[in-house]
Amino acid sequence: MNQSLLNPHILPVPLEKAYRLLNHGPTVLVSSQDDESTDVMAAAWACALEFSPAKVTVVLDKSTKTRSIIEKSGLFALQVPTLKQLKMVYALGIISQYDAPEKLRQCGVELFQFGYSPIPVVEGCSAWILCELIPEPHNQQQHDLFIGKVIAAYADDRVFRDGHWYYHEAADEWKSIHHVAGGHFYTIGDAVDINALKDTD
Amino acid sequence: MNQSLLNPHILPVPLEKAYRLLNHGPTVLVSSQDDESTDVMAAAWACALEFSPAKVTVVLDKSTKTRSIIEKSGLFALQVPTLKQLKMVYALGIISQYDAPEKLRQCGVELFQFGYSPIPVVEGCSAWILCELIPEPHNQQQHDLFIGKVIAAYADDRVFRDGHWYYHEAADEWKSIHHVAGGHFYTIGDAVDINALKDTD
Repeated sequence: MNQSLLNPHILPVPLEKAYRLLNHGPTVLVSSQDDESTDVMAAAWACALEFSPAKVTVVLDKSTKTRSIIEKSGLFALQVPTLKQLKMVYALGIISQYDAPEKLRQCGVELFQFGYSPIPVVEGCSAWILCELIPEPHNQQQHDLFIGKVIAAYADDRVFRDGHWYYHEAADEWKSIHHVAGGHFYTIGDAVDINALKDTD
Repeated sequence: MNQSLLNPHILPVPLEKAYRLLNHGPTVLVSSQDDESTDVMAAAWACALEFSPAKVTVVLDKSTKTRSIIEKSGLFALQVPTLKQLKMVYALGIISQYDAPEKLRQCGVELFQFGYSPIPVVEGCSAWILCELIPEPHNQQQHDLFIGKVIAAYADDRVFRDGHWYYHEAADEWKSIHHVAGGHFYTIGDAVDINALKDTD
């Protein structure tokens, strides 16, 4: 199913602007699929690594099923969930599919795919970054650090368009969420523009 | 000068909780000093890497003086600036000391040190993470990615105490700032607690 055709709000983001989807440091969802399994987990430790070619990092603990799937498939997606999805995001972060095979159903995850991409992604997010793993055994083993080359990026134009977030205009339910610890989150807040400051200050 | 003795609000943060200072994805300042130079730059691409022993990552472009200082000194600090410091943070991110030797003075940076630590840190931030570089030539050369082992952490108790941020209680000027691109920032927003949601929802 090609959601980008079904949902007119989901638009491609140029690869060299994909870093902007992560630059404000939101907690993300990591999704992946191999021949046997599909998993989604929450991760606060994801970051942009390079503008062009666009790359990202994400820390994946050895205890996660998502990690073992990515090691096999070599593909994953990072996506930016919204305040509306808070409970789902938290559940995806504390439940392991190793303990709960029905994790995704339990958490209420609905998946789709972009065109012919084999990477499952989560419905209702504000942005999606599809990645090809750049295998780096030292980083993966020593630091649980996975590096992805961005192969496509998309965002919902109700909150990200023309290379910019519009959190300050969209409904609160679209806000990104930023986990601190133990279920304590902050949403993203107000827009502050340095250029506006210069004019008035 | 030992600021932690001078300012009673600056308290140590246990190393295993240092990740919480970065977990919400703020734009940070990176500071460093060698025998010849001192520099501070802004960086949006900083992230926790490990709980214990606490480690962090930060991406440092080859064009920055900060990077060359860290490569020599093997020490640096990440610190979490506040909304009050927005103009300074932005200026520190766009001005290079290679072009402007007086960068720090121009930007209005005031530095101090914690006890006998040789790492200069910026006054007025909300949190400071002192790091020892873990030299990894491949990551540094290939990805501009620097890994630090956290050797000490501090926070201002007016906004972070007992292992938690109190952005929702502190004045707005304490909020963390999250750069998207080109001088467009967001502040951190409202607190949302998953446990509170469970009670009412």
